[in-house]
Amino acid sequence: MTTYPILLAIQQISSELSQIEFLFSNQDTEPYGSDYTEDLFFQPTAVCFPASTDDVSAIMKRCDALNVPVFTRGAGTGLSGACLPVSAGLVISTKKMNRIVSIDTQNLTATVEGGVINANLKSAVEEHGLYYPPDPASQGSCSIGGNLAHGAGGPRAVKYGITRDYVLNLEVVLANGDVIWTGANTLKNSTGFSLTHLMVGSEGMLGIITQAVLKLIPKPTQELLLLASFANLTDCAQAVNAVLLSKYKPCAIELMEKSGVEISMHATQTAFPTHESAEAYLLFAFDGFEGDDLFAEAEGIFGILEDHNALDILPSPNADVAASWWKVRRAIGETVKQVSPYKEEDTVVPRSAMSGLLQKVKEIGEAYGFQSVCYGHAGDGNLHVNILKNDIDDLRWKEEIPKAIVEIFTYCKSVGGTISGEHGIGLVQSQYLPIVMGDTHFSLFKGIKATFDPKGLLNPGKWLG
Amino acid sequence: MTTYPILLAIQQISSELSQIEFLFSNQDTEPYGSDYTEDLFFQPTAVCFPASTDDVSAIMKRCDALNVPVFTRGAGTGLSGACLPVSAGLVISTKKMNRIVSIDTQNLTATVEGGVINANLKSAVEEHGLYYPPDPASQGSCSIGGNLAHGAGGPRAVKYGITRDYVLNLEVVLANGDVIWTGANTLKNSTGFSLTHLMVGSEGMLGIITQAVLKLIPKPTQELLLLASFANLTDCAQAVNAVLLSKYKPCAIELMEKSGVEISMHATQTAFPTHESAEAYLLFAFDGFEGDDLFAEAEGIFGILEDHNALDILPSPNADVAASWWKVRRAIGETVKQVSPYKEEDTVVPRSAMSGLLQKVKEIGEAYGFQSVCYGHAGDGNLHVNILKNDIDDLRWKEEIPKAIVEIFTYCKSVGGTISGEHGIGLVQSQYLPIVMGDTHFSLFKGIKATFDPKGLLNPGKWLG
Repeated sequence: MTTYPILLAIQQISSELSQIEFLFSNQDTEPYGSDYTEDLFFQPTAVCFPASTDDVSAIMKRCDALNVPVFTRGAGTGLSGACLPVSAGLVISTKKMNRIVSIDTQNLTATVEGGVINANLKSAVEEHGLYYPPDPASQGSCSIGGNLAHGAGGPRAVKYGITRDYVLNLEVVLANGDVIWTGANTLKNSTGFSLTHLMVGSEGMLGIITQAVLKLIPKPTQELLLLASFANLTDCAQAVNAVLLSKYKPCAIELMEKSGVEISMHATQTAFPTHESAEAYLLFAFDGFEGDDLFAEAEGIFGILEDHNALDILPSPNADVAASWWKVRRAIGETVKQVSPYKEEDTVVPRSAMSGLLQKVKEIGEAYGFQSVCYGHAGDGNLHVNILKNDIDDLRWKEEIPKAIVEIFTYCKSVGGTISGEHGIGLVQSQYLPIVMGDTHFSLFKGIKATFDPKGLLNPGKWLG
Repeated sequence: MTTYPILLAIQQISSELSQIEFLFSNQDTEPYGSDYTEDLFFQPTAVCFPASTDDVSAIMKRCDALNVPVFTRGAGTGLSGACLPVSAGLVISTKKMNRIVSIDTQNLTATVEGGVINANLKSAVEEHGLYYPPDPASQGSCSIGGNLAHGAGGPRAVKYGITRDYVLNLEVVLANGDVIWTGANTLKNSTGFSLTHLMVGSEGMLGIITQAVLKLIPKPTQELLLLASFANLTDCAQAVNAVLLSKYKPCAIELMEKSGVEISMHATQTAFPTHESAEAYLLFAFDGFEGDDLFAEAEGIFGILEDHNALDILPSPNADVAASWWKVRRAIGETVKQVSPYKEEDTVVPRSAMSGLLQKVKEIGEAYGFQSVCYGHAGDGNLHVNILKNDIDDLRWKEEIPKAIVEIFTYCKSVGGTISGEHGIGLVQSQYLPIVMGDTHFSLFKGIKATFDPKGLLNPGKWLG
């Protein structure tokens, strides 16, 4: 079906559901045609803004009846292009579904709508002394629904785990408009195949997550950072391993290559204690309830870092300095983008293989003639590799660089890793998925997809075609 | 198909795969016709003992070709009857697949075959100072494959999570004999729908788990128990809530009703410090690396327990006493069984609802005239309700008691809970599944099942019919 009949169908739906806001003009819908992935843009046919589960269900019943493809969109901060409206269809924005339905201070859970911004949930539960740990770099603007759809992680995964680990139950609107809760509001559940865990990471292809019951924990009241600089990436990666084999338990271990730090410092105008001989930095965070405990932990790993040739090791003297170090780390992704278009690869390997991966990325970079800026979650073996376009011409960027990416991902696979740790496959990693998934996997994926979405209306044109 | 043609087909398979041990006589196969669920027994048609993934694949290719149903069986310690061979078919025992393939002391992972006994894995990794936390009561005899198939939990889930939280990657033999790895050996993975998490808790109905890559953690070197007695279950449940809202973090919080403690003490001939006015006990475990930390934690909750009317609070004076307290707790399930046949319900509710659930169970018990022994994982809201047959006649046991169970589960659902926290649905909870799952869920379950097992050969006759 081409755009025109789909547009007519959406117009019909919009007239039937007059309580729901729809946008049709190119100018109005343009902001919904891109996310944070490279410089991609697809003009949406139309965008709608349901305000409740009932709205989403009503929309899906009609889209199902009229065969209108839909592209669900959270806050649009994705890095794999998973929400992009790549063909004619209706963009469903969860922007208006931003209610924190309840915070259960007895059971330490929160029930939220899919469009709630991660940081808003964090603030709301903090008022009760509680904490929602998953913290993607985009936490100030990304939505819980998007986090769930991508299986998002974040720095604190080292100690606290990822989004998946905080989901108890999901309300999902299926392709035909039916509404289900996938599980129960309990910490344990062995009741049927886990639809909850199947929805996490399903990138809008199996259903639309309208509400989630999430686990909370008591909020740690103290944080201490330790910043260590290293002359090379190998020392850096080995220091991470040594720390993780010790009894000390940082809540985050972030790796930053020199170039990433410099770009981010400059772009955000933020002070950061660089070391002239440093090629890479490790940022360790410790959190807890007693300042003394954190100092003891930091002291404990001090010696380990020295043994691994740290050039300099600095504790954060106060909360403001700590915040500025975090700011530099978190801004690397978006500020590198201001320097040059880039492709960001979300590589993940068993932790001890990270040193080899870093070396391999640099070798491949030399062979293909590209600059890379590497950073990420060293404690999880999750390395973001940003390949900068700089002066690479469009043809080589399009034809040759993907071959380099294949080499990087093939290396990841060879050491037991895979092609996405937390960003998802979406649109841009789709071509690389066969590196790690064979025909048998795809046939299972297709069967699952057909079960949930027999007409293929949910987020078409992504990694399942 | 009746038993005879299936038997002939299995005989043909056994002659083709002469390297694999098969048992056919009723006497030989009898031990494989029951598990730990009530007093159920089903005579197997035949049992085989593959020794490798290749063996399992070869068996499944032939079973697929000849339409032979299979019932995969780990150590047979299940409590929902999920492995029972309820109709003609081949029991596949993973008993010989008991190799610990590798322990990766750099990445803190272990790769094991499905038949490895949980406690054997624990011992093997302890030699490296490492720890595999999931600890079902049957840990001395249950298999990792069975733990995975049921999404098993255990006391330490309060701090460490359940089996699901320790799985990185699974090798699975599909119904047609194809072999896949479901994920990667990494701590994070957002690469396609999560086949790994779909397999966890799938009770042998979607594939046969032949190998697993599991996460390990540094082994805590110290443990301290605190035993508190209470005059009633309500105080007990409220004390649990108060502790979990504090900053203290026990690794286990076990609830035991008086009658369960008494039966277990007596049957195991183990000393336990009962209190004459106590109706229930809470066993708190703390673990860590520094004895002082544990004492501080125990001291911290001491006051909380006093505020909630604890009659007596005792720390474990030494490791031997701690072991005996654990022994009494762990043996409740099996020793109660020696007193009377029983039905064990694996109820799970949001933690704060446990007090209400306990009250409800007793009320329903009075109305239907049965004795119940309750115990379980109070920190997770996971309460095992053992309904004793005692002198209830067979007809009432069969006709009336299920109605009482429906009432208990309906209550669980009404407070946001469900019908199994860690035992699975299998055979005996099958009739109750519609209390928490509707037609839409079942249609999704059936679609997933048909994708993985189009002929319905894997573990037929359980909760999907």
